[in-house]
Amino acid sequence: MAGSTASPAPGRSRPGWIMSGEMAEQPAVLRRILADGAPAIRATAQRIAARRPRFVLLCARGTSDNAALYAKYLIEIRLGLPCGLTSMSTTTAYGAEPHLDDVLLITVSQSGGSPDLTASTKAAREAGAITLAVTNNADSPLAEVSEFHLDLLAGPEKALPATKTYTAELLALYLFVEGLRGGDGAPAALLPDLAEQILARGAEIRELAGRYRFAERMVITSRGYGYPTAKEAALKLMETSYIPALAYSGADLLHGPLAMVDNISPVIAIVTEGRGGAALQPVLDRLRGRGADLVVVGPQAQVAAASGGFLLPTDGVPEEIQPILEILPLQKLAWEVTIARGQDPDSPRAMAKVTQTR
Amino acid sequence: MAGSTASPAPGRSRPGWIMSGEMAEQPAVLRRILADGAPAIRATAQRIAARRPRFVLLCARGTSDNAALYAKYLIEIRLGLPCGLTSMSTTTAYGAEPHLDDVLLITVSQSGGSPDLTASTKAAREAGAITLAVTNNADSPLAEVSEFHLDLLAGPEKALPATKTYTAELLALYLFVEGLRGGDGAPAALLPDLAEQILARGAEIRELAGRYRFAERMVITSRGYGYPTAKEAALKLMETSYIPALAYSGADLLHGPLAMVDNISPVIAIVTEGRGGAALQPVLDRLRGRGADLVVVGPQAQVAAASGGFLLPTDGVPEEIQPILEILPLQKLAWEVTIARGQDPDSPRAMAKVTQTR
Repeated sequence: MAGSTASPAPGRSRPGWIMSGEMAEQPAVLRRILADGAPAIRATAQRIAARRPRFVLLCARGTSDNAALYAKYLIEIRLGLPCGLTSMSTTTAYGAEPHLDDVLLITVSQSGGSPDLTASTKAAREAGAITLAVTNNADSPLAEVSEFHLDLLAGPEKALPATKTYTAELLALYLFVEGLRGGDGAPAALLPDLAEQILARGAEIRELAGRYRFAERMVITSRGYGYPTAKEAALKLMETSYIPALAYSGADLLHGPLAMVDNISPVIAIVTEGRGGAALQPVLDRLRGRGADLVVVGPQAQVAAASGGFLLPTDGVPEEIQPILEILPLQKLAWEVTIARGQDPDSPRAMAKVTQTR
Repeated sequence: MAGSTASPAPGRSRPGWIMSGEMAEQPAVLRRILADGAPAIRATAQRIAARRPRFVLLCARGTSDNAALYAKYLIEIRLGLPCGLTSMSTTTAYGAEPHLDDVLLITVSQSGGSPDLTASTKAAREAGAITLAVTNNADSPLAEVSEFHLDLLAGPEKALPATKTYTAELLALYLFVEGLRGGDGAPAALLPDLAEQILARGAEIRELAGRYRFAERMVITSRGYGYPTAKEAALKLMETSYIPALAYSGADLLHGPLAMVDNISPVIAIVTEGRGGAALQPVLDRLRGRGADLVVVGPQAQVAAASGGFLLPTDGVPEEIQPILEILPLQKLAWEVTIARGQDPDSPRAMAKVTQTR
């Protein structure tokens, strides 16, 4: 965004400069994971595959919970393993003593410092689970209590809204799941360059952001692999701009909340190029039929048929890794909307980087 | 609500009369399940327990998805079994072929008619899962494809926003989970009378509804067993009044979205009497510290310390069945807010009773 006249340059002490810098680091972080992290991720996956887990549980909060949801799709679709997101309070508040033989528990946390994540991972390990921590801090309490650990190699993240650790989590989890099935995740090699191209299109995002400057609510929808992107985009918008942004899978949107969508509730749809996007088509038709203000992040034809959008380059990118690109324009959108509303994306009210939930 | 002067009487053709009538039926439906449904539920639970499932998957959408989440807490805490909510599109859109030996799949659906629920349940049964349908229609396609079936006995539900089938689902799932562990669910005998007492307090709810007449957004929070109530209350408010209502577990609220809460974003907290309520305490303190408009559904001391509230009678009611009572004032709140805003709770825009998601 340097050189822009419409937005403040991300110089030190300008609003949003920390988040802006961390978003810009993402191509480099993806390259680092592919070059330096992948061998260790593959080796860990092989050791865990040899233990033949039969069920997978994922444990995370906030942004990392959206990365965990992405992993859930990969695990169900690519591995055919039943999978669930844990409700942490069952262990930490209610003292549940689950039977976890044959269960792989993957705990995802940028900081590795939340006491409840550490406590529930420790309890799961004692209950027989294979435990894997995915964190940006190899020395964290979470990494300590877990049998295995994947390092995100993203460098310190200082902005309160997480960006580079989110895409790092997605890539690390993708490489790990591919490793479990004996693959090498080769298609991911395309991602760093594409991420760079997307992040260079700041002017397009700034223009899109204009339409949300006075929005009082937003609905974000997708289906399949794109659904975690919808949830993460909604979280990013809420924690930076405070716009109530409601994320729904397309199917759930038809089960009630569609009543909320009309020409004053803008909708953003994340349309992956593939089966998830195809499954979303009836929802897109329904939204257009209601006259919704529909902005699409996705392929050309979908963007052209919408009120506006951001064309996502997906040539040769399999659907399952498109989420690593899809979130990039939406992170920047949250940043631009927040700046346009005169707030500071780096310092949302009430947030702390390591949340001390117990 | 009959005899009220502030709200229209729920006579035929008055706005909201169908939903109002169905809310009022809830004590009778709970009694019917306890008297006529419980033996069959127990017998089914015994047959399934003999198969020794090791992992439970739950499959549902909309209101039933909130009932499924309640069951997830019961299964993790009361049975100690790992449990997950399915992402249906992994089967229906992506053709995932999961390995489901030792897995119990519970599909929850009022109508039993959604094609995607039926398709994914059928696929799971073919993949080796023990399948149980929980529906209000024993002749539905879903009941047909499932090995086992629990009938909700709630009578036809005609209002688009589901109310009596939600509490029926909660009670049936509670009795089923207790049956799996060899219990009889005796504490549930208290519920019908308490539900009746709560539903008789319409004037209190009407007064509470007044403060939300012009609300542009709402945040609803809870933790543990009360969290599904928060999600269902948010859904009910959105589908009837179209107020964007955001539900968060208390722990997740501290991971970002708290930035949205200030003196113009009212908060409703569901405080169960028990460990979930205790775990929510730091969140309540934080909300009070921010000057939030906080309304509590819960015990006396919590209501007294808040900006307003609804005292929930819980004498002798264990925490795990309080959700069956908690949702009642919140269903009525959604109804009252919608009436106050001049809309018809029976006919939300864009909703269909059987959603044809595929």
